[in-house]
Amino acid sequence: LAKTVLGLYADAQRRQEQAAMPRPVTSAANPAAKLLRALEMKKTRVEERLFRAEGVRIVTEALDLGHHPAMAAVTEEGLARPTTEDLVVRLEAAGVDVMVMPGRLMESIARRDNVQTLLAAFPIPEVPLEDLPIPADGLFVVLDRPRDPGNLGTILRTADCVGAHGIILIGDACDPWSVEAVRASMGSIFALPVVHADLASVTNWCKAHDVSLIGTTPDTQTRFDEPDVAGAIAVVMGNEQSGISDAVAAACDSLVRIPMQGRADSLNLAVSTAVMLFDIWRRRGYANAR
Amino acid sequence: LAKTVLGLYADAQRRQEQAAMPRPVTSAANPAAKLLRALEMKKTRVEERLFRAEGVRIVTEALDLGHHPAMAAVTEEGLARPTTEDLVVRLEAAGVDVMVMPGRLMESIARRDNVQTLLAAFPIPEVPLEDLPIPADGLFVVLDRPRDPGNLGTILRTADCVGAHGIILIGDACDPWSVEAVRASMGSIFALPVVHADLASVTNWCKAHDVSLIGTTPDTQTRFDEPDVAGAIAVVMGNEQSGISDAVAAACDSLVRIPMQGRADSLNLAVSTAVMLFDIWRRRGYANAR
Repeated sequence: LAKTVLGLYADAQRRQEQAAMPRPVTSAANPAAKLLRALEMKKTRVEERLFRAEGVRIVTEALDLGHHPAMAAVTEEGLARPTTEDLVVRLEAAGVDVMVMPGRLMESIARRDNVQTLLAAFPIPEVPLEDLPIPADGLFVVLDRPRDPGNLGTILRTADCVGAHGIILIGDACDPWSVEAVRASMGSIFALPVVHADLASVTNWCKAHDVSLIGTTPDTQTRFDEPDVAGAIAVVMGNEQSGISDAVAAACDSLVRIPMQGRADSLNLAVSTAVMLFDIWRRRGYANAR
Repeated sequence: LAKTVLGLYADAQRRQEQAAMPRPVTSAANPAAKLLRALEMKKTRVEERLFRAEGVRIVTEALDLGHHPAMAAVTEEGLARPTTEDLVVRLEAAGVDVMVMPGRLMESIARRDNVQTLLAAFPIPEVPLEDLPIPADGLFVVLDRPRDPGNLGTILRTADCVGAHGIILIGDACDPWSVEAVRASMGSIFALPVVHADLASVTNWCKAHDVSLIGTTPDTQTRFDEPDVAGAIAVVMGNEQSGISDAVAAACDSLVRIPMQGRADSLNLAVSTAVMLFDIWRRRGYANAR
């Protein structure tokens, strides 16, 4: 470990005059360690305006996308792995305070089901609805009161894959910055803007910018591939139990249903959102596909 | 425990002739209550050949689809609700032994995150591959070592919605009869046959019955909507981390990729399966859609 830290120090010195060293932390009572753990709670995330991302891959992607963590923690074992060490060097060079801790302390911070060698806390991006860029072929996902953070994270991941331009949460939505949603997003939480707004603001925004609002519901005979997909579109998906509210349905320019057969009467929310988004992208010729 | 189950069957049969009444159970040490709880463990499910379904809606659907539970439990509070009471009357009429227990005892049996008023244990259906009916437009989902039971249950739900004819699990797959998979399937576990088989058997079955095996992988330039969808099809989806194995890829008649854009490099497994299945159904004209 001593050698690794010296190596890191030398690397960092080459980059910066005043390079920070990874800071050893051994106690769960350390305030920064306590904060990293407390970011599992919405209350702490709201107060600190920070959220937690776990793992070398996601934190690397966040840096690639221009996000700057407020702090990070790495395990001693992690520092011995080249990819983790490279990331720590990169974080240090960017002036991020990196704690080095025993694996056991990291285990007490992370959830037991997903212990990683590296964690970082990022500022929650505050994007007002009016700041969302709207390309001519804009594609947005409006979620009416989503309840499950795993679904929300999976929807972020899918939206990123089809090149959507943002997620808009209305009503009493689960927290996109929760550990579970961030994890399910597989890094896409850093790639797409996530906006909280009320229905009236979304309706006004759609009218002002000529975005058509397409709501999904079983209560219509219009199939999901009928409405025109030219121009900017916002697809509205409802709550897992109750679907879109009457007020949301009334605000939509069109309502569509996803076809089904047999006894089944609904799809998982992340699945139905994916089916909607991929069919829109199909009708747009899979533009920009890799 | 096996004896207990046989005993319960005998009890139930005796009572069917004598106008059965729900049987009060107040102790967690009651063997039937212990068995219901132990069905959370794979070991118990394998030994008893039983699995647990939770909630009035799913158990009602199971009965509608012709499945017959080995035993059931209802809370005292649940019995006061008309829909729950109706189901209990139906279970009793079918000769099922129904335990009535305090809510607190049910809470100790069910998982804390999903306490229902009614649980039932059903025999695990054993469907050999050679018994799977293969319609001319057969649609099957082959899952190569799926790891996450939530994904597996969600895939069952989606497959049911598009009218697929069965799920085939190959390799080291998570358990479709786990509480989590059954729950995520939203009752579809009772609607579709689920088969365990090895790759060689699946390959032989496909050849013998003219089923084309379409594997999904990022390592091809063939887009997912290129192969012909006439005739019977089995779509092969890989493990969440590693995708389809080389051996599975070699056994496929064609390999396809789902288009993606941006930095995102993969979809959630339940999402990619849904995108595949809905696009096949689309190219079949959404036949049999409600």
